[in-house]
Amino acid sequence: MQSLPGFRDFLPGDCARRNYIFSRWREVSRRCGFVEWEGPPLEPTELYKKKSGAEIVEQLFNFTDKGEREVALRPELTPTLARVVAAHEREFKKPLKWFSIGQFFRYEKQQRGRLREHFQLNCDIIGEKDPGADVELIALCIDVLRAFGLTEKDFVVRISDREFWTDFFRDNSVPAERWGDLLQVIDKSAREPREKTAEKLGDVADLVFATLKGGGKSAKLERLVAGLRVRGLGDFVEIDVAIVRGLAYYTGIVFEAFDRAGKFRAIAGGGRYDNLIAQLSDGALSLPALGFAMGDVVLGELINDIPGAREAMHDAIANGSKIDIYVVVAKEERRADALAQIQELRGRGYRVDYPLTPAKVARQFQAAEELGARIALLYGDEWPQVKVKDMTTGEQTLISKNDVISRMEPLLR
Amino acid sequence: MQSLPGFRDFLPGDCARRNYIFSRWREVSRRCGFVEWEGPPLEPTELYKKKSGAEIVEQLFNFTDKGEREVALRPELTPTLARVVAAHEREFKKPLKWFSIGQFFRYEKQQRGRLREHFQLNCDIIGEKDPGADVELIALCIDVLRAFGLTEKDFVVRISDREFWTDFFRDNSVPAERWGDLLQVIDKSAREPREKTAEKLGDVADLVFATLKGGGKSAKLERLVAGLRVRGLGDFVEIDVAIVRGLAYYTGIVFEAFDRAGKFRAIAGGGRYDNLIAQLSDGALSLPALGFAMGDVVLGELINDIPGAREAMHDAIANGSKIDIYVVVAKEERRADALAQIQELRGRGYRVDYPLTPAKVARQFQAAEELGARIALLYGDEWPQVKVKDMTTGEQTLISKNDVISRMEPLLR
Repeated sequence: MQSLPGFRDFLPGDCARRNYIFSRWREVSRRCGFVEWEGPPLEPTELYKKKSGAEIVEQLFNFTDKGEREVALRPELTPTLARVVAAHEREFKKPLKWFSIGQFFRYEKQQRGRLREHFQLNCDIIGEKDPGADVELIALCIDVLRAFGLTEKDFVVRISDREFWTDFFRDNSVPAERWGDLLQVIDKSAREPREKTAEKLGDVADLVFATLKGGGKSAKLERLVAGLRVRGLGDFVEIDVAIVRGLAYYTGIVFEAFDRAGKFRAIAGGGRYDNLIAQLSDGALSLPALGFAMGDVVLGELINDIPGAREAMHDAIANGSKIDIYVVVAKEERRADALAQIQELRGRGYRVDYPLTPAKVARQFQAAEELGARIALLYGDEWPQVKVKDMTTGEQTLISKNDVISRMEPLLR
Repeated sequence: MQSLPGFRDFLPGDCARRNYIFSRWREVSRRCGFVEWEGPPLEPTELYKKKSGAEIVEQLFNFTDKGEREVALRPELTPTLARVVAAHEREFKKPLKWFSIGQFFRYEKQQRGRLREHFQLNCDIIGEKDPGADVELIALCIDVLRAFGLTEKDFVVRISDREFWTDFFRDNSVPAERWGDLLQVIDKSAREPREKTAEKLGDVADLVFATLKGGGKSAKLERLVAGLRVRGLGDFVEIDVAIVRGLAYYTGIVFEAFDRAGKFRAIAGGGRYDNLIAQLSDGALSLPALGFAMGDVVLGELINDIPGAREAMHDAIANGSKIDIYVVVAKEERRADALAQIQELRGRGYRVDYPLTPAKVARQFQAAEELGARIALLYGDEWPQVKVKDMTTGEQTLISKNDVISRMEPLLR
């Protein structure tokens, strides 16, 4: 029996790396005043059609359930967020600063950095149109990546503005019904041959290429970058109007984080989607909003690629997986005494392990070492005394069985 | 737009309660030397058919994917565990002590305490046939529940043994092919009218009823309970041979945790499944195994029902959601200075929030209070000094802008 293609098993080492990513995501989001929420992994397919059009269904893990409902494993969180906010917005003071960590799905051919499932951090600010919110969100995205030991030498956030392009189209009298398609073409331009892009752009090709080459001037983007510079984050960002992002619903600032070396796909991406809540609530509620998502797969590849980040991860995992105490049962007659003590130590919050069955003392000490125990407690001939071995120094002392708790506390502080 | 029936949205308060449960699950499992792993939420339907027979499909969220694969949202973790262990067992020393926290699905009519999705803690010991492993596993189940502030007055673990019944059948010359069905009838006997049970039991009805009434004598179960008594856990368990558990694959000890008041469904359940890995690996690998699962829905109901547990949860959540510092921007001219300081404080790990847009000072202090800030820092007319307000005592002091970090450290320790 095998797992499905594109789905991962998380063996203990994989799970520890995943949890390391989750804990950093959670910690930095909370540091910045974001609160956690979560939606269901299965939603009505209609929720995604309504947002992205019927063609989205091609990429979905969707099916008809036993109650004849059209349902889909969620490909992204934003539609769920809009649904939840529309249903509950009166319960919360705006602006909302919300984050979420969960699994997402797509039915796609597997590629490097792209499976059929992945985990994402989603961070959103709802109910604030001020550009200060855009700065706060991009600063959070940068801070999250820095928490993995990544520096301005390792990654950059490229910032752009959909309004820059809609202003451009308006100035050049491009009819509004073409804007959406043209934005998609610009989004793909860096990854496609120039001729193909030119053909799709048609009569505006020369103008668009000139603008992309010139870098584009935008007072709004300059102000945004100035806001990040105030926070000391200027070296982490670049203005790049070639960034458009594929999703149709963005209305303003858009951004993507990339590794500086250009080895990987985008690490994170997001932007403003001021009209989406109104669209998904059929106009019942209108709230400006912005957010970004960061996946675990590309981020994990980047962490593995940058020595400092990789070491920081390994150290954090090694420290987090250690047990405090290993109890060596040297005489089986002492097993009951040992187990009573183990129960009490665990009750006090210590991580304690022991051999489930009789084993040689040397093998038990080996297990203590492999599990990273700081202390070994030996129950054997010395009873009613217990031998304490400091696994770091190798120092051994004998203590009364009644003193185990009081002697452990200073040793494990 | 609505969520699907039986699927929950986790608004921030719900998510905090869910995370409280997860963090206790994780903490106690680690304390007892269990290591975390996780499988995919979608698996080949065959994995469940192979374990439980074709009739399981009725209760599954299953479908045919775009690659014509029969797939199912996982209803339980054990088949995945058997698959993963069979594929990787050489990489790990036995016995394995593994735990996992994840979401599970079933297509069922919704009832109280039973949705179409729920989260489960799964704890398993693989590769150990010694009854000491059964004691360790049941002790973990008890310790997990105690970590929520639940006591022996609130819950009990009822322990039974499939071998008690197979011995009974053998002693009474019941043909082996009837055992499986009879076990299912005994499992349901407490929830069905006696006549119905009697009819299904047929010629062994009187014997079974007499045994259930007599409580059943089992030296093996007595030894198990003695093992728990050594750990001081005797008051948390009872022998009850009426416990059989519905799943076909159990081979030995089985147990279920219930609230003492009998208000709720089982809180947790598990047992030995020594043949399952061999069955799922077509005999390629045979390893004794045992495990239990605990869901978040019934546990959450019980926590809400027991005042001590409920208060412990509320306190933990209230403390965990507080921010450290709220920065009051009293003069907009000072916003850039405030933001630079916020960035530095967050970089040092403090949880810091501030108003995204200009707001009255009184409203900002109100926000500081609502967010549980311990300190408010005010940037205004006092510049280049900053006003520090201890939100607990109300005490206010002025400090130099350069002293913010050094002054925060002792205050927030």
